[in-house]
Amino acid sequence: MKNYITHDEWCIVEDGFHPQHNEITESLMSLGNGRMGQRGNLEEGYSGKTLLGNYVAGVYFPDKTRVGWWKNGYPNYFAKVLNACNWIGIDIRIGTEILDLNTCKIEEFRRVLNMKEGILERTATVTLSGGRKLRIHSKRFCSMADDEAGAISYTMIPLNFTDHFTIKPYLDGNIRNRDSNYDESFWNEIQAEAAGAEGYLILETKENPYQVQQFRVATGMYFDVKIDGAKVENTVENRVEGKYVSGSVCVEGREGQAITIYKYAVNLSSENYAKNELLANAKSYISRIVSKGFDCMYAEHIQAWADKWAKNDITIAGDVAAQQGIRFNIFHLGQTYTGEDERLNIGPKGFTGEKYGGSTYWDTEAYCIPFYLSTADQKVARNLLVYRHKQLQKAIENAAKLGFTDGAALYPMVTMNGEECHNEWEITFEEIHRNGAIAYAIYDYVRYTGDESYLTEFGLEVLIGISRFWKQRVNWSADKKQYVMLGVTGPNEYENNVNNNWYTNYIACWTLRYTLEVIDRLWKDDSRTLNEIIFKTDLQLNSELAAWKHIVENMHYPYDETRQVYLQQQGFLDKELLTVDDIAAHRPINQKWSWDRILRSCFIKQADVLQGLYFFEHEFDAQVIRRNFEFYEPMTVHESSLSPCVHAILAAGLGLKQKAYEMYVRTARLDLDDYNNDTEDGLHITSMAGTWMSIVKGFAGQRVVNGMLALKPYLPQEWEGYSFRIGFRGSLLRVSVSRQSVSIENTSETPLSLLVNDQKIFVDGRASVQL
Amino acid sequence: MKNYITHDEWCIVEDGFHPQHNEITESLMSLGNGRMGQRGNLEEGYSGKTLLGNYVAGVYFPDKTRVGWWKNGYPNYFAKVLNACNWIGIDIRIGTEILDLNTCKIEEFRRVLNMKEGILERTATVTLSGGRKLRIHSKRFCSMADDEAGAISYTMIPLNFTDHFTIKPYLDGNIRNRDSNYDESFWNEIQAEAAGAEGYLILETKENPYQVQQFRVATGMYFDVKIDGAKVENTVENRVEGKYVSGSVCVEGREGQAITIYKYAVNLSSENYAKNELLANAKSYISRIVSKGFDCMYAEHIQAWADKWAKNDITIAGDVAAQQGIRFNIFHLGQTYTGEDERLNIGPKGFTGEKYGGSTYWDTEAYCIPFYLSTADQKVARNLLVYRHKQLQKAIENAAKLGFTDGAALYPMVTMNGEECHNEWEITFEEIHRNGAIAYAIYDYVRYTGDESYLTEFGLEVLIGISRFWKQRVNWSADKKQYVMLGVTGPNEYENNVNNNWYTNYIACWTLRYTLEVIDRLWKDDSRTLNEIIFKTDLQLNSELAAWKHIVENMHYPYDETRQVYLQQQGFLDKELLTVDDIAAHRPINQKWSWDRILRSCFIKQADVLQGLYFFEHEFDAQVIRRNFEFYEPMTVHESSLSPCVHAILAAGLGLKQKAYEMYVRTARLDLDDYNNDTEDGLHITSMAGTWMSIVKGFAGQRVVNGMLALKPYLPQEWEGYSFRIGFRGSLLRVSVSRQSVSIENTSETPLSLLVNDQKIFVDGRASVQL
Repeated sequence: MKNYITHDEWCIVEDGFHPQHNEITESLMSLGNGRMGQRGNLEEGYSGKTLLGNYVAGVYFPDKTRVGWWKNGYPNYFAKVLNACNWIGIDIRIGTEILDLNTCKIEEFRRVLNMKEGILERTATVTLSGGRKLRIHSKRFCSMADDEAGAISYTMIPLNFTDHFTIKPYLDGNIRNRDSNYDESFWNEIQAEAAGAEGYLILETKENPYQVQQFRVATGMYFDVKIDGAKVENTVENRVEGKYVSGSVCVEGREGQAITIYKYAVNLSSENYAKNELLANAKSYISRIVSKGFDCMYAEHIQAWADKWAKNDITIAGDVAAQQGIRFNIFHLGQTYTGEDERLNIGPKGFTGEKYGGSTYWDTEAYCIPFYLSTADQKVARNLLVYRHKQLQKAIENAAKLGFTDGAALYPMVTMNGEECHNEWEITFEEIHRNGAIAYAIYDYVRYTGDESYLTEFGLEVLIGISRFWKQRVNWSADKKQYVMLGVTGPNEYENNVNNNWYTNYIACWTLRYTLEVIDRLWKDDSRTLNEIIFKTDLQLNSELAAWKHIVENMHYPYDETRQVYLQQQGFLDKELLTVDDIAAHRPINQKWSWDRILRSCFIKQADVLQGLYFFEHEFDAQVIRRNFEFYEPMTVHESSLSPCVHAILAAGLGLKQKAYEMYVRTARLDLDDYNNDTEDGLHITSMAGTWMSIVKGFAGQRVVNGMLALKPYLPQEWEGYSFRIGFRGSLLRVSVSRQSVSIENTSETPLSLLVNDQKIFVDGRASVQL
Repeated sequence: MKNYITHDEWCIVEDGFHPQHNEITESLMSLGNGRMGQRGNLEEGYSGKTLLGNYVAGVYFPDKTRVGWWKNGYPNYFAKVLNACNWIGIDIRIGTEILDLNTCKIEEFRRVLNMKEGILERTATVTLSGGRKLRIHSKRFCSMADDEAGAISYTMIPLNFTDHFTIKPYLDGNIRNRDSNYDESFWNEIQAEAAGAEGYLILETKENPYQVQQFRVATGMYFDVKIDGAKVENTVENRVEGKYVSGSVCVEGREGQAITIYKYAVNLSSENYAKNELLANAKSYISRIVSKGFDCMYAEHIQAWADKWAKNDITIAGDVAAQQGIRFNIFHLGQTYTGEDERLNIGPKGFTGEKYGGSTYWDTEAYCIPFYLSTADQKVARNLLVYRHKQLQKAIENAAKLGFTDGAALYPMVTMNGEECHNEWEITFEEIHRNGAIAYAIYDYVRYTGDESYLTEFGLEVLIGISRFWKQRVNWSADKKQYVMLGVTGPNEYENNVNNNWYTNYIACWTLRYTLEVIDRLWKDDSRTLNEIIFKTDLQLNSELAAWKHIVENMHYPYDETRQVYLQQQGFLDKELLTVDDIAAHRPINQKWSWDRILRSCFIKQADVLQGLYFFEHEFDAQVIRRNFEFYEPMTVHESSLSPCVHAILAAGLGLKQKAYEMYVRTARLDLDDYNNDTEDGLHITSMAGTWMSIVKGFAGQRVVNGMLALKPYLPQEWEGYSFRIGFRGSLLRVSVSRQSVSIENTSETPLSLLVNDQKIFVDGRASVQL
């Protein structure tokens, strides 16, 4: 755990340079706009510890699988998010000395991520050789308004000297993924040119044997140099060589004068432009933003963020660390996925690092969808669902590779384009509950938005594919005279290859029930559309539906009659049942125990019975939830970043306020304080949505009941108050909870009836209610 | 399956060159002598498909582990058998043309492994450019008499031309393991010299961070060139450069004259000589064998093989393919391990390839020990046991890494020096039954030899270490009120991470019982020695023994009351129970099914309940064995080379002669006919012992009953007769089985009473009995 980030309500502040933590700070201070993302690297370059990172949404490389021991069915490649051309670089030479914070003396340093504005700002004073003092002030953003562009203003003031400054803004394509399986470069140069202050570099991903398209990215730049606001017209010397272009300008830097470089850049990908039109588009894009100018771009960018915060901000009174933590989470979620493009999704590290290189996990459906449903336009969550619909055919092919037939769909554990990327058999082949979460997200979306049209347009096809998978994946146990599901790994990855994981069995049968229910509803209400879907999916209305019903009615669920709790899996009671308190000295077990010891222990990474009770809370009474919570919570080590939020929500619902707060604290500052010693690899983007849920679904008890928004807010005793903004079916609410009252302000024109503590409340457009 | 090897009783014959199968032939025609091994590569070099291989016993490199996903407890390195200096190479240039069977025209070609003599012989006629015809005749052996030496005679006759021949015998250390994890060379050059016909190259394994010693190997050579028998005294031009030494001679090759090169070579390792004396020893070794001369070395080598065959030959009448198959297996076992050195063991590929680079698996104890017990001096099997005793401390450390304490020992799955090398969690950490096989081998050895002294000298310490492991590895199930063993993989590797694998539970309790029994015997007979062992192992006589007894009395064994069979593991009956006939089109499933499908199917790679009933046959009645055989055999796909032999033995014992023969056929020509498409990687050395067992323990029913050798021989109807040679406590028998009779000839001086078909028979020294 680190503690070097200054607490502040709106900013992430590194006060004084922490070179040993530089890669952590770079992760924390990443900027993005849904189309591109840039780690908090230093513009002038840095010879110390640094992980350069610029990522372009949707652009990846199929890196050939490398495993110790091959298992049949492993995918041939891992689609990795690509570290792309460095667009922020500005080499600075003062006299003969290269400006490098790793070699000069740092007198003063402050790096600030301003989350309100989405700006990364840095001020520093350094002493160069010969006692020359230089002041630096840089500002950077990835524009939310022009979402393929970024801009930098970089100012230097020689405080006590006059010297030649050689300023060389550049684009550099000599970038490798640190996690490349074979230490390869993934990029070829297609075209490079530079003329004066303009430069362009077009790179393409290398050929591959997997029929994966080769992506092309055009990066363009333009720069201006001004001294005390007056544009410098000196000659620019260009270099174009080996995936690199630059323009170099020499100016006289006089004591006390400000030299400012404005660098504008764009990253356009062949996902959005014809390959042969990339250069022309990059040029016109550059021309457009340059004529707009830095200040105008900046203003538009800030406005875009203001609009976002108006929909999703959470305030916490009386706890600056908690306030900073929740805004940090909301900020990164907001810049990772904007919902503009249904071909994109949310990687566990977003645009903040390379690790877990694939883009999409079940995290999106299980954790992120609720956040976007409540805080963004309906289309944002919808596009996340459509992403899976677009990959349905690939999911059917993926299932076919594992021996499933007749349109059964198994969505991948990790994917960029719909093909499975992961290669641990116990996860790739067995952590199939992901399929259930994808079905659940459809239900969750429809429940929240009321948008039934999604089912006929896209959802039912996906549900049918997944139901077909479950049907084939279970088998009849002649011994139990019930259906069983063998050889699975549940969300609790501290068990592998178990039989009858309660969560997986439950979500499988739930999928079958929900699919049957949707078909039944359409049968009555819209048989014409149903027929189209039946035709398209070749659904055998009689035999398939009968088989699904038979499974629903005859599934085996492991259960302990004595304790009256569901059993995580068959045989769970053969374990030595201890609590985390019994092994205090052994934690975290994922660092202190060998894998087999973890597997045969009772300890739980993330409690999947509780995950199931959280998803399907409406199908269980509180006593059942409480018994299971009290059985599993003491065995849960929460060594998944996705675990505490579910416990926080359940605990809040059960009135276990102390436990709920304890769980909240575990998730809220995970990255900011580097709890797991891995923030340098990038941020835990998807678990950030869990933090948001801990407040809104946990402390505020947000649910949807019979198509109505429902809240049961309470104030954790550690806080003085909190507020959050959520949208529901056209209304936009600001809910404020204090020690004395709950107030609900409708900031939209659309009136809303909602349930607060089970009481129906009406809030008119632009009105407030105090409770 | 391939069918290009000519059937012959004593020889493996490749008639006509099969370049597409060259790597297979190279494996089949490997030579060795227990100290070194050499694949059947061509002396003159070959630019086509080839896997060069020279291996020096006990010399390995700790190759840094490379896995896709790290699991706690994985070893840091994999100790790999090293591809060492090429000592057979003789470059030949005729005029300006390099002799290379890949580029010249092959008129006639025959490569023969003469198993009786242990000689690799090759005759070929090739046409070079300009129609020049050349006859080649080479002979090579790794001397069984001088076991650090090899010799080659290589003759060329220009049939229709006269030209300059440049002959360049060399030693080449520029060799890499094809399976290197990081594509590294593992060797550094220490010294190289060449003078005239002599050359030496001393290589050392590279530095490593694992405290593994650096091995040094000195390879030496000397050569003679003769023309029609007369020694050529031409000038030798030497080259010493970059891990390479050579001596080059130019001779006039006249039409019809025979040019013969005799190349002598030695491989001495720092395991047997002080590092700084390696060169001197290599020189004196070379000098000694050169003065002995090729013919004398050859004669001594043949005699050594004759002595071996006198102890271990099996003849089969009426089936040349079967005869060739069994001798092929015996031959390779004989040249892989001679039992001279208790630091050595038997790798699954012996000295025939790199794959499974580690040396020792449980194969040695479960399959090879019975072969060596019956066919070699007692010390050979004893040395294999001592090998494990020497590694006891490492086994204790290995267990400690996984959290076990107080002297619990877990032997590695794969090892060279006692440290675990393997890195698949489900095998490395969970396939712990290996520990039981190591205990069983002690019992097996003592039962066969009557050598109880082994227990006090070495065996009991190992048994105590293993018993302590089992004690800690089980846990009390409050639910079952019995001990359970969770999270294991049995010998059937088509199940992973199962609970209560019957075989593992049984062998664990058997180990505890046997250890208790040995202690009890010593308590009565030799309490002084027992006390020494108690002191040395810090055994808590009261508490530890009581705990072991409690486990023995309260272990859970999964059982099907309906079918009255043991269950392979908890929950086995939840599977869909099919037979291999139901999935004929899907076999082999390890190629056609994804791993998860294999895991959740009922299909068995190698039936571990049957393995247990084979090991502990004396503890079960025939009805029990039969019921289990009939339950599991139909589900067994035998996709392990170690599987069919156990079924053959059990089937033979149950009188299921057809099944026994079917199983025998599956194992006997596995490599010769390349059943599994992997002979090119090397031979399945350890499963060869299983083939031997299928005949001796299967068809001939060899057992030990109350300290007596017992036989129940029958003749498979497909054969006309068979005979085998076995030793038992000083006697040496030749047992011949024909349609009419069984004859037992005692070829030693030591008389023997044995049981034949449960009747006690006496065979005097040098006498025969006909039954």
